Amino acid sequence: MKNTTINVIDYDKIRFVEKTVESVKDIINYKKTKTVSWINLNSLKNEKLLDEIAKEFEVHPLILEDIKDVRQRPKVENLEKYTLIDLNMVYAVENKLSFEQISIIFSKNYLITFQQKETDVFDKIRQRIRTKTGKVRNMGTDYLAYLMVRAIIENYFKILEEMGERIEKLEERLVKNPSTKSLQQIHELKKIMIQLRRSAWPLREMMVTLEREESNVITKETKPYIRDLYGDTIQVIDTIEVFREMLSGMMDLYLSSISNKMNEVMKVLTIMSTIFIPLTFLTGLYGMNFLFMPEINWKYSYPVLILVMITISIIMMYYFKKKKWL
Amino acid sequence: MKNTTINVIDYDKIRFVEKTVESVKDIINYKKTKTVSWINLNSLKNEKLLDEIAKEFEVHPLILEDIKDVRQRPKVENLEKYTLIDLNMVYAVENKLSFEQISIIFSKNYLITFQQKETDVFDKIRQRIRTKTGKVRNMGTDYLAYLMVRAIIENYFKILEEMGERIEKLEERLVKNPSTKSLQQIHELKKIMIQLRRSAWPLREMMVTLEREESNVITKETKPYIRDLYGDTIQVIDTIEVFREMLSGMMDLYLSSISNKMNEVMKVLTIMSTIFIPLTFLTGLYGMNFLFMPEINWKYSYPVLILVMITISIIMMYYFKKKKWL
Amino acid sequence: MKNTTINVIDYDKIRFVEKTVESVKDIINYKKTKTVSWINLNSLKNEKLLDEIAKEFEVHPLILEDIKDVRQRPKVENLEKYTLIDLNMVYAVENKLSFEQISIIFSKNYLITFQQKETDVFDKIRQRIRTKTGKVRNMGTDYLAYLMVRAIIENYFKILEEMGERIEKLEERLVKNPSTKSLQQIHELKKIMIQLRRSAWPLREMMVTLEREESNVITKETKPYIRDLYGDTIQVIDTIEVFREMLSGMMDLYLSSISNKMNEVMKVLTIMSTIFIPLTFLTGLYGMNFLFMPEINWKYSYPVLILVMITISIIMMYYFKKKKWL
Amino acid sequence: MKNTTINVIDYDKIRFVEKTVESVKDIINYKKTKTVSWINLNSLKNEKLLDEIAKEFEVHPLILEDIKDVRQRPKVENLEKYTLIDLNMVYAVENKLSFEQISIIFSKNYLITFQQKETDVFDKIRQRIRTKTGKVRNMGTDYLAYLMVRAIIENYFKILEEMGERIEKLEERLVKNPSTKSLQQIHELKKIMIQLRRSAWPLREMMVTLEREESNVITKETKPYIRDLYGDTIQVIDTIEVFREMLSGMMDLYLSSISNKMNEVMKVLTIMSTIFIPLTFLTGLYGMNFLFMPEINWKYSYPVLILVMITISIIMMYYFKKKKWL
Amino acid sequence: MKNTTINVIDYDKIRFVEKTVESVKDIINYKKTKTVSWINLNSLKNEKLLDEIAKEFEVHPLILEDIKDVRQRPKVENLEKYTLIDLNMVYAVENKLSFEQISIIFSKNYLITFQQKETDVFDKIRQRIRTKTGKVRNMGTDYLAYLMVRAIIENYFKILEEMGERIEKLEERLVKNPSTKSLQQIHELKKIMIQLRRSAWPLREMMVTLEREESNVITKETKPYIRDLYGDTIQVIDTIEVFREMLSGMMDLYLSSISNKMNEVMKVLTIMSTIFIPLTFLTGLYGMNFLFMPEINWKYSYPVLILVMITISIIMMYYFKKKKWL
Repeated sequence: MKNTTINVIDYDKIRFVEKTVESVKDIINYKKTKTVSWINLNSLKNEKLLDEIAKEFEVHPLILEDIKDVRQRPKVENLEKYTLIDLNMVYAVENKLSFEQISIIFSKNYLITFQQKETDVFDKIRQRIRTKTGKVRNMGTDYLAYLMVRAIIENYFKILEEMGERIEKLEERLVKNPSTKSLQQIHELKKIMIQLRRSAWPLREMMVTLEREESNVITKETKPYIRDLYGDTIQVIDTIEVFREMLSGMMDLYLSSISNKMNEVMKVLTIMSTIFIPLTFLTGLYGMNFLFMPEINWKYSYPVLILVMITISIIMMYYFKKKKWL
Repeated sequence: MKNTTINVIDYDKIRFVEKTVESVKDIINYKKTKTVSWINLNSLKNEKLLDEIAKEFEVHPLILEDIKDVRQRPKVENLEKYTLIDLNMVYAVENKLSFEQISIIFSKNYLITFQQKETDVFDKIRQRIRTKTGKVRNMGTDYLAYLMVRAIIENYFKILEEMGERIEKLEERLVKNPSTKSLQQIHELKKIMIQLRRSAWPLREMMVTLEREESNVITKETKPYIRDLYGDTIQVIDTIEVFREMLSGMMDLYLSSISNKMNEVMKVLTIMSTIFIPLTFLTGLYGMNFLFMPEINWKYSYPVLILVMITISIIMMYYFKKKKWL
Repeated sequence: MKNTTINVIDYDKIRFVEKTVESVKDIINYKKTKTVSWINLNSLKNEKLLDEIAKEFEVHPLILEDIKDVRQRPKVENLEKYTLIDLNMVYAVENKLSFEQISIIFSKNYLITFQQKETDVFDKIRQRIRTKTGKVRNMGTDYLAYLMVRAIIENYFKILEEMGERIEKLEERLVKNPSTKSLQQIHELKKIMIQLRRSAWPLREMMVTLEREESNVITKETKPYIRDLYGDTIQVIDTIEVFREMLSGMMDLYLSSISNKMNEVMKVLTIMSTIFIPLTFLTGLYGMNFLFMPEINWKYSYPVLILVMITISIIMMYYFKKKKWL
Repeated sequence: MKNTTINVIDYDKIRFVEKTVESVKDIINYKKTKTVSWINLNSLKNEKLLDEIAKEFEVHPLILEDIKDVRQRPKVENLEKYTLIDLNMVYAVENKLSFEQISIIFSKNYLITFQQKETDVFDKIRQRIRTKTGKVRNMGTDYLAYLMVRAIIENYFKILEEMGERIEKLEERLVKNPSTKSLQQIHELKKIMIQLRRSAWPLREMMVTLEREESNVITKETKPYIRDLYGDTIQVIDTIEVFREMLSGMMDLYLSSISNKMNEVMKVLTIMSTIFIPLTFLTGLYGMNFLFMPEINWKYSYPVLILVMITISIIMMYYFKKKKWL
Repeated sequence: MKNTTINVIDYDKIRFVEKTVESVKDIINYKKTKTVSWINLNSLKNEKLLDEIAKEFEVHPLILEDIKDVRQRPKVENLEKYTLIDLNMVYAVENKLSFEQISIIFSKNYLITFQQKETDVFDKIRQRIRTKTGKVRNMGTDYLAYLMVRAIIENYFKILEEMGERIEKLEERLVKNPSTKSLQQIHELKKIMIQLRRSAWPLREMMVTLEREESNVITKETKPYIRDLYGDTIQVIDTIEVFREMLSGMMDLYLSSISNKMNEVMKVLTIMSTIFIPLTFLTGLYGMNFLFMPEINWKYSYPVLILVMITISIIMMYYFKKKKWL
């Protein structure tokens, strides 16, 4: 993966060519051919290559900047000659989300994808093209772009499903045994949701732009598919919100459980102390060494005191029972 | 319920036919007859059957996908030849909500319902058609669709009423005796509300789409009925919000009650300890075995000490009284 | 109040008639007379009567349903022949709000009020008509409807004023002596605010509909009065929001006070324990019965130990003083 | 201030007259003169006078009602012949906000101000007119009204600055020494912010109405000044929001400090108790009076026990050190 | 920096002049020359100078006021002859944010910058002009203004990055060892975010105004650059929101940690007390000096009691184990 490789898939209903080229001059022809030409760059590291492509395909300097800047907010821009789709691919690796930028530029005849890192997200689409599965071979670059955006949105669903399962498991554990570890996990999931929300929100707006705005590239035939994606992004966002609220609820539940537990601890301490403190005082009383203490010499002092102590304990316990502490 | 059965009700003002058919070819005619033909599928399991119907009734592949995908967000789509209504039927089974998708496709002449699982939600409508109750026999498919949506929204009201009663009971119990169980129940009801809200929110938007958007299927006569449904969905959403706020308030109340209780427990401990700690110290003092302790041999030491102890206790109690701890 | 009575007030600038009739046929004429005819029904129990009136006055079945359904959300509907205003009259009876629905249907010539229960909310308006006070006798049914809506909104102000006073009193008490009772009262007021908000919110929208929408019934002359009502509803809603926020603030204050109190209780316990625990240990030490304890037989052991104890107490107290616990 | 006095300032570029009149007939002429006539009423108590003025200056009964009703929400109304501006003057007197209503009615030739109470808020404007400072003598009534609204908004800035300083001081104190008094002060400032927000919010809307709506009174020349005021009101509202958030943050900080403090108190108690409880038990053990206790008679019991106790204390302390409680 | 110095950079594609002038008359010519003339004032202290410039360049008095008032909210105003951009430069100095106002006025031929304090924010732009880097020398004043706004927005990104790192470090520390210092730091970062948000929010609106509103100064060529800035401001605002939410989450985490810790402290105290309190009572019992206590004289009393005590301890510990307190 050291060098940026340029992968080209060129197809129409009948023809299909797939190859890996090395320099920009090998792909210039695809700019004009009537076939759908998908040019894929598997890295952004070769800046010179990017500049060359930008020059050949008349990419506006600002758009090129967007492609290079991987921290870029997802967006769609409809330009005269092509449309830019800037997206984030989400990965969940051990409680941490990471994002890889994927930029798609497509005109009537060609579609260029710039991947921050090589991913397998488009493998299924490649397979579909190769095997003529579905409509892809009968449609244009706009449908190909739709398939790509869809693959990326599908990925959100996959991650959300995973998160949903984790949240459910965490909740079960929380009810049974609220530990500091659960707290940490709630916090981590909350942070993931904040990040997911941030990256998913622009998607909605993007789909609206793609569907509503006049574009020279997107055909009427593909529009319903994009409207469908809009519905999907809404569902992604809704699910994130629902998860956020559930995590908030779990935080509350956790805090209440802690309070409850402390209450219980305090009750045990209070009951034990309150019963034994007066008894111990009494033993102290008759442990004093005064010479003149009449009770000391009385024969039944000891059993009477024991009886008194038992009575006190029973009264105390009745009191706690009444207070529902026991 | 193993096989998907196709139930057909075909009616107009005068005629009425109800039958169960087995293959798609038995229902193709209904596509063109001027009577209202309601074709009901009681399951989505027979994919082949769905595909056949989609083909015969010219259902767009995306729409078919929506019908099959039961996790789909509720929505309305006005297409050229028919209108799709994708809805969720809500069930509350023991503190858990479950949703069953119901998709309705209707054109001027026919209306097809796809039910995820067989439910009795439309039984009343069937009865109305059979017995000519209300206007249904005089109206078209759009009114029939209205009745269906209405039945599903009525169901929300029913569930909300049930939840309202539960919340009220829970609140009473909370005031009397806040327990960990109440906490769990508040949490569960909160989660139900999150889910209900999620599924009820799209309804509002759907009603707006049905009422405002130009449609080839929905007549002017049916529009006021849909506007009325819009008001109902607003009421559903409002009620959910009110319940959510009430549950939040109850959570606060619960937490405050717990704090209050802990305070009370602490007070008992503190009062007991504070009164007896100095007394016990005094008994310890005169329990020491030093040879030279003048008080030990004094004749009135014991009664004087008892008096001192009583005095200390009274002072302490007065102090607590003043602090309003007693 | 067993039977629904129909009360009619028929007036114009000069004429004035007030009477109670028994059947619908007595009021049919008022549908066409040029005078303003206010027909009041003091109950919704006589369904047959309602149906008859609906038939005679051409009330749409959906509107009739709205009038009968007392849980209905407040709303305005401008229909071709008449305008419907569906409102809630608010009552505050001992910490509980109750709502009574009042539906107003008015056309150029007549105005019908349907009251869920007989109330005295319109008595002042009746008096104004009788005594020719204000402009009412010079204006049409729309002004009469305005007066009615205004009376109902005035009622909101009255209740809010009452709530405001209660909140103020509660706050004072909260500052002086936060008790569990205050907590309950905050919770109750919060619940009332949730309900009030729910019933007041639609009013705003209603006033907008009445003012903006084209109506065959509302004259240009009456519009400024309705705009004024709009301002009033905004004020009602604002006040409710302010009260809600104040109650939230009070909840926070309450919780903080509880925490503060617990802190104080804990400090007393800790100070007492911390001072006496080492002292009691020392007394225990010299209460041991070992045969070989040199200090026991030393002559000045007792006074020296007393001194040591006093020193320890002073050090402890100095420590607490420095920590600002005393 | 017992009687309502009518103060008149009549000016144009050249002429300037200032006088106090007693009856309405003395001001009627100003209705038509081409000069700018500012008529100021320093109280609303003389209702008869208000009615007379309303009659003479053709004030709509609803507008008169607004002027009289001091609880009125701030608003702007553009009427055919004049524009009404209803404003609140804010005063901060010892932690309490009070509001005085100021109503301004202005037409091309005259401007009438109705003050709930006599204030000095317009003194600077009077001075400007007298001394020909700024543009006021070259402009019309609309510019004069602008100056007045500006003076009132300036007042908001002044109060907010004062509040800002108080918040800053409070925060410093909070960090150093969180006391119950600070809690009360946060609560009071929060309440002030709720009130301020309520009274400042309508200002924004008012400025929009003044700038956007067609008016017969406000000239194109004055519009930029009003747009500027709009920016100011936004800043007022923003500042209030910022203060509200800061106060919320301080409340959180306070609560956390309290929790921290309690934690510290608990630690002291726990450390002291945990170290001495086992030691005291040991002393109790050897203070028992059993005849057969071998250790009692052993010569080195006492020093060995002392050593054991020291060892226990050291272990305990090491344990607390490891837990970071010390 | 005592005197306000006027720095002029005058350039087009070919020519380039840079000089420092002293009086307004030296810059008047630049008002009309076709070259781009950037006039920079490094302070606002010389009011007379500002007034002179305002007069010569026909700056509206209100705009001049905005330039002088450094507390001004950021804004854009498109006037007939020039456009005003009022911005805040953000500095983060040791946990405190400070803002310096920068006002930009630009017409076709000239651009004047008014800096509250001399900053180096524009040094890179100066360098670009001098060295003909990028497009600046080929574009007009609008592009120069774009570069300036961009530099200021870049600064936000820099500060946010710094804050992001601080938040991350703080979070790590929070997880390991929640201290009062962390609490203070969360609070400080929260306050910074409130301030940043307040100053960043208007940027979004400003970019919309610059892009959408008709302007005589901003060319079609520069518009895409401004749209790009709009995206950047959205990203700034998003990031601030994300940080705010993360800080809120950290506050919750902190509070929960404190509760957890207190719980742990309480458990230690309760376990120690609960085990030893009954044991100490027993030792007290047999430390009493009653003459008639049969156990005292029994030979095996002591070892039996020791066994009883060990049994009690084991039962207690088993109980705590079962409760998961150990």
